Amino acid sequence: MADEERLARAALTRVLEPGDEAGGQWLRSYGASGLIQRLKEGGELFPRVTSARREGLRGRAVAARPERDLEQARAARARFVCPGDPEWPAQLDDLGHARPIGLWIRGQASLRLWALRSVAVVGSRACTEYGAQMAARLGAGLAERGWVVVSGGAYGVDGAGHRGVLGAGGATVAVLASGVDVPYPRGHHRLLDRIAEQGLLVGELPPGDHPTAYRFIQRNRVIAALTRGTVVVEAACRSGALVTARRAQSLGRHTIGVPGPATSGLSDGVHQLLRGEGVLVTSAAEVVELVGAIGDLAPERRGPVVPRDLLGPQAARVLAVLPATGALTVRDIAHGAATTPDDAVGSLYELQSLGFVERHGDGWQLTRQTTQTVFSSNERW
Amino acid sequence: MADEERLARAALTRVLEPGDEAGGQWLRSYGASGLIQRLKEGGELFPRVTSARREGLRGRAVAARPERDLEQARAARARFVCPGDPEWPAQLDDLGHARPIGLWIRGQASLRLWALRSVAVVGSRACTEYGAQMAARLGAGLAERGWVVVSGGAYGVDGAGHRGVLGAGGATVAVLASGVDVPYPRGHHRLLDRIAEQGLLVGELPPGDHPTAYRFIQRNRVIAALTRGTVVVEAACRSGALVTARRAQSLGRHTIGVPGPATSGLSDGVHQLLRGEGVLVTSAAEVVELVGAIGDLAPERRGPVVPRDLLGPQAARVLAVLPATGALTVRDIAHGAATTPDDAVGSLYELQSLGFVERHGDGWQLTRQTTQTVFSSNERW
Repeated sequence: MADEERLARAALTRVLEPGDEAGGQWLRSYGASGLIQRLKEGGELFPRVTSARREGLRGRAVAARPERDLEQARAARARFVCPGDPEWPAQLDDLGHARPIGLWIRGQASLRLWALRSVAVVGSRACTEYGAQMAARLGAGLAERGWVVVSGGAYGVDGAGHRGVLGAGGATVAVLASGVDVPYPRGHHRLLDRIAEQGLLVGELPPGDHPTAYRFIQRNRVIAALTRGTVVVEAACRSGALVTARRAQSLGRHTIGVPGPATSGLSDGVHQLLRGEGVLVTSAAEVVELVGAIGDLAPERRGPVVPRDLLGPQAARVLAVLPATGALTVRDIAHGAATTPDDAVGSLYELQSLGFVERHGDGWQLTRQTTQTVFSSNERW
Repeated sequence: MADEERLARAALTRVLEPGDEAGGQWLRSYGASGLIQRLKEGGELFPRVTSARREGLRGRAVAARPERDLEQARAARARFVCPGDPEWPAQLDDLGHARPIGLWIRGQASLRLWALRSVAVVGSRACTEYGAQMAARLGAGLAERGWVVVSGGAYGVDGAGHRGVLGAGGATVAVLASGVDVPYPRGHHRLLDRIAEQGLLVGELPPGDHPTAYRFIQRNRVIAALTRGTVVVEAACRSGALVTARRAQSLGRHTIGVPGPATSGLSDGVHQLLRGEGVLVTSAAEVVELVGAIGDLAPERRGPVVPRDLLGPQAARVLAVLPATGALTVRDIAHGAATTPDDAVGSLYELQSLGFVERHGDGWQLTRQTTQTVFSSNERW
């Protein structure tokens, strides 16, 4: 994507609210630079909007300072990824006109690769002890099976899920309704920093921007679209987690729920889901059984999906550490590749998405296909 | 049915174990009298069995004293009902060769009428506080909606379900794996006596006979076949309640489960069911929504299904007490019909099955169709 277009998209993340479908249509009609220009001039737009709204957008467009935002992002070690970029997760295109304009990302790994093998674990902020326990257990269990866990970084189920993954040396993505440099909720300041190190922080809002109720709802569509399925762990009947689950369903993703006592109001929403299209699960193994049904076997059968030569230098170093047979821990792999465990985790989950390696419990090993194709050739390793 | 055949069937309940499919085939081939004769003589049978088994059956047949059993039943205020009798529940015929030879019944009401609007509530003997609470709540809720609750009279879920119904002035049936005069389990002596007064005790075994592990399993098929659906409230993975639920499913009945914490071993079996064909429910209203889907509306649309003249004298007296508009409690109805509340409950649930009356909470009233057809005519009431 041309620098001018990228800059215009960065500006648009400050002008248009996430999920604005009219905005998505304008973007397609006029291109990013054309649209930002038109918005600054207060010109006519199709589909039309009220002149008051046009005036509001003009004010935002004139005030936007995308160079400064990109600079601020760099300072926070964040990057801005646009549709068409190598790191862009193609599944977000399923959102149509509501596709994000771009994503602000903090963290080492490739969002695109991680999202290929990802599941959302979401639920109530005010969850019970049981809900927190189940979220943590699922997070850890999914991590140990080599799956990336996506959630919203909120209190309650989200936080417990993220923590379960981090504790198991796994890969987790927090999709925020604010700038990726804005620690929200404040009480999760350290957790979010930790996710930025071992995982990824992702959001549609530019640096410094704050969440609103509307942005929380729109954030849910990104979680639903990024992942292969959404697992709801405790949710009251009108909760945001249910919005995510229903969005997942309408996008053709798996909709999954963890049952609880019929007497618990915090399980009411989940049970409602399970009485409809949702599938009941009680363990990470059952989640993987569902979401892994197709894609999980495919890479195994056809082996690595990209040539080793196309891997980034860090991923290639990590891959080179793994022996022909047997497994290593993240710690050993990091040592062997002369990198940190956090970076090693990032690369390992990327390599897993590509079919080179697989995780079993705490051990990482080459897939059988990698061993066969690489070690049977005379290729220098 | 001829007295001789009835006597022979009574004898056969002491000779053949419940659910014996070969026995069911013999019964069809030779008739009850013919079969008991053949068994006494140790004659050849088709399908064939070993001579040892034939000898065992001969011993039992020779020892059988059906007149004494019928006398003992009468003393315990029990009756013996055979296929083809007015009280025989036709849905048991779905069991094919495993259809009960006859049923021993204690209690006032007509099993056939009650079974028309019945649901099974079953589950673990060693249930949790939560399981007992849900069973009692479902029992009461189903009773208040005019549904009959069938269970096995056991400790745990069964007992809690029965008690919930009794407390709500409802109709409940305990299907026993012993003679209906044998209080099993002993600790439920009083509960079972109470069910015999306000509800029905039903079993395939003749007076005085005791339960065995095999008989418990076979008892489950009767519960499944009698009812429109089976609700499982807490069950471990290899429990009898699951056997009942699967049998219900294979008989084309609804299979229903109450969720619990994913961490509870006592909900594992239910969750397994809910991951298959089972439908998740959290309340009696949801159960009725399922099982009442067809049959519940039908009588309403077409009004009472039998002429009033064909009602028994007690049911006719109870019906005559109800006013054209408005509802009465069981106590008021019993007073008006000069009978006991227990007897009134029996008749009211019979009349509900026939479409004459309906229960809403604690009130009983005529259905709209009854009011229209009866009060609009000049028929003397």
